[in-house]
Amino acid sequence: MHAIDQFQDFFITYLEKQTITKEPENLYEPIAYILGLGGKRIRPVLTLMTTEVFNGDYKKALPAAMAVEVFHNFSLVHDDIMDDAPLRRGNTTVHEKWDINTGILSGDAMLILAYQYFEQYEPAVFMQLAKLFSRTALEVCEGQQWDVDFETRDDVTIPEYLKMIQYKTAVLVAAAMKMGAIVAETSEENANLIYEFGLNLGLAFQLQDDYLDAFGDPKTFGKQVGGDIIENKKTYLYLKAIAFSTKEEVAHLLHLFSMQLEDNVAKIESVKKIFNLSGASKATQEAIHDYTFKAFETLEKMDIEEDKKNVLRAFGDNLMGRKV
Amino acid sequence: MHAIDQFQDFFITYLEKQTITKEPENLYEPIAYILGLGGKRIRPVLTLMTTEVFNGDYKKALPAAMAVEVFHNFSLVHDDIMDDAPLRRGNTTVHEKWDINTGILSGDAMLILAYQYFEQYEPAVFMQLAKLFSRTALEVCEGQQWDVDFETRDDVTIPEYLKMIQYKTAVLVAAAMKMGAIVAETSEENANLIYEFGLNLGLAFQLQDDYLDAFGDPKTFGKQVGGDIIENKKTYLYLKAIAFSTKEEVAHLLHLFSMQLEDNVAKIESVKKIFNLSGASKATQEAIHDYTFKAFETLEKMDIEEDKKNVLRAFGDNLMGRKV
Repeated sequence: MHAIDQFQDFFITYLEKQTITKEPENLYEPIAYILGLGGKRIRPVLTLMTTEVFNGDYKKALPAAMAVEVFHNFSLVHDDIMDDAPLRRGNTTVHEKWDINTGILSGDAMLILAYQYFEQYEPAVFMQLAKLFSRTALEVCEGQQWDVDFETRDDVTIPEYLKMIQYKTAVLVAAAMKMGAIVAETSEENANLIYEFGLNLGLAFQLQDDYLDAFGDPKTFGKQVGGDIIENKKTYLYLKAIAFSTKEEVAHLLHLFSMQLEDNVAKIESVKKIFNLSGASKATQEAIHDYTFKAFETLEKMDIEEDKKNVLRAFGDNLMGRKV
Repeated sequence: MHAIDQFQDFFITYLEKQTITKEPENLYEPIAYILGLGGKRIRPVLTLMTTEVFNGDYKKALPAAMAVEVFHNFSLVHDDIMDDAPLRRGNTTVHEKWDINTGILSGDAMLILAYQYFEQYEPAVFMQLAKLFSRTALEVCEGQQWDVDFETRDDVTIPEYLKMIQYKTAVLVAAAMKMGAIVAETSEENANLIYEFGLNLGLAFQLQDDYLDAFGDPKTFGKQVGGDIIENKKTYLYLKAIAFSTKEEVAHLLHLFSMQLEDNVAKIESVKKIFNLSGASKATQEAIHDYTFKAFETLEKMDIEEDKKNVLRAFGDNLMGRKV
């Protein structure tokens, strides 16, 4: 099997060949721009890797991997408009560099372009890929809507939060892997098991992202540590802290999460202390462990060679930042 | 064959059955709202009618017709954001009734939902429909981008304008009809001919819309007569007037089209006079006639019964507002 960085290279080489100068420029330039901003390309790499795990040729999976990456970038362009975000991967967002209308229309075109990459497969495979893609894309929209709705609600439950991150983040990781399985034409059972693997790993990853946002090492985390606390985001840590705290502690946390400050150092320290003392930090680490364990469990049922399972385990360990 | 108003009834009955109460409400309510605003449902009716023209069962075409209508409404929701339009079919637009973010996200969901309606067909038909749909949807985005670009350009040519209205409007009419042909499983040649028919009829219809915007009867036109002139829109009438006029007349027209007035009565009268005296009105009417004639010409080559051709001719005549 190829290594992760090889799959990254294969994908980036393929991606760079796609950049066609097409008219109207104002529609296609923003698309080339956002796709060229980089990122770890985790989703398309998962598609290629999964095809090889099921003994398919990764080259056959390149168009499907591209569809996943184009869709992911579509969702970034539209989400950045909705969040009024100035920066993406350290660069100006599309709607800031051009304008909101360009962001809307270029995003729309990307959603359509993603579907067009599936046209390189024969009808039965095309239909399987497009169906999975549509279901997933709609779930991502639903997840984004829940996320928007949660901002103005103060009664969000833990199951609701988990459903939101499942739809907004985990289903695309799961679908990226299942697409690799579909391209490899493995059994339906294997395809469904790898979807479960991706879904649980995606949930573990998102919960870890919540955790590291508060407790990560500023040198390696990539984003501003404490960002969620500054923005008063109701993450898993926050919801668990509310659930585990006494009335007085809840009032204190609610008070901290009603503040918009210039200097956030003291607020971040106070909130982190509550996260630790309430047991929310420990509960979050346990949830991350549980979802990772659940992902690895599905490997047991999978009908593939043991060395392929080891590849998937190593990827999971690597993603979750543990030494293997 | 069924009559147009019967197809309208069939489609509306089908549409009304689709309205499922789904969560999250803030994503799906705007979709039900815009789809419920009415309109003539010309595009889905064309899909149903075309299936019957090629001896298929219109019932089989209902999901494809629905996909076309859902896509059309998606484009209205996003275009209304871009144009900052307050009203659509006499009602508040989605982004005014909710907000811009809701308009973006509900629109995205509609684009995906449109693809999902094709899942009711078998793989080979699914692929044909989805491919045609993607190509068409991308062209509609390109047409919208050209339209946006033209607003700030003063060197738009007649061929560029025709390409813009072809992409923004005519290709969807053409695709709606070709989808009916695909569902009826007629020959590829017939399917391509009906696409040509729809494309030319769509162009004739859009040019007539330009013409009636200036010269229509306020009682029957449905929109504000003179609206394009008030907004200084570079329509076919305007571009032809520029092409046919002397330097002095061009300067006069450019001056009129640089004005933003409170009372537009005098401006509208002046511009209409130039349209008439320059020969632009006559040239527009000729172009409408030519595209309609071209549409009817493709019928000659079509391998269907004469009475079916008469149905298509009657539809064309009716659409172009001529007594049959």
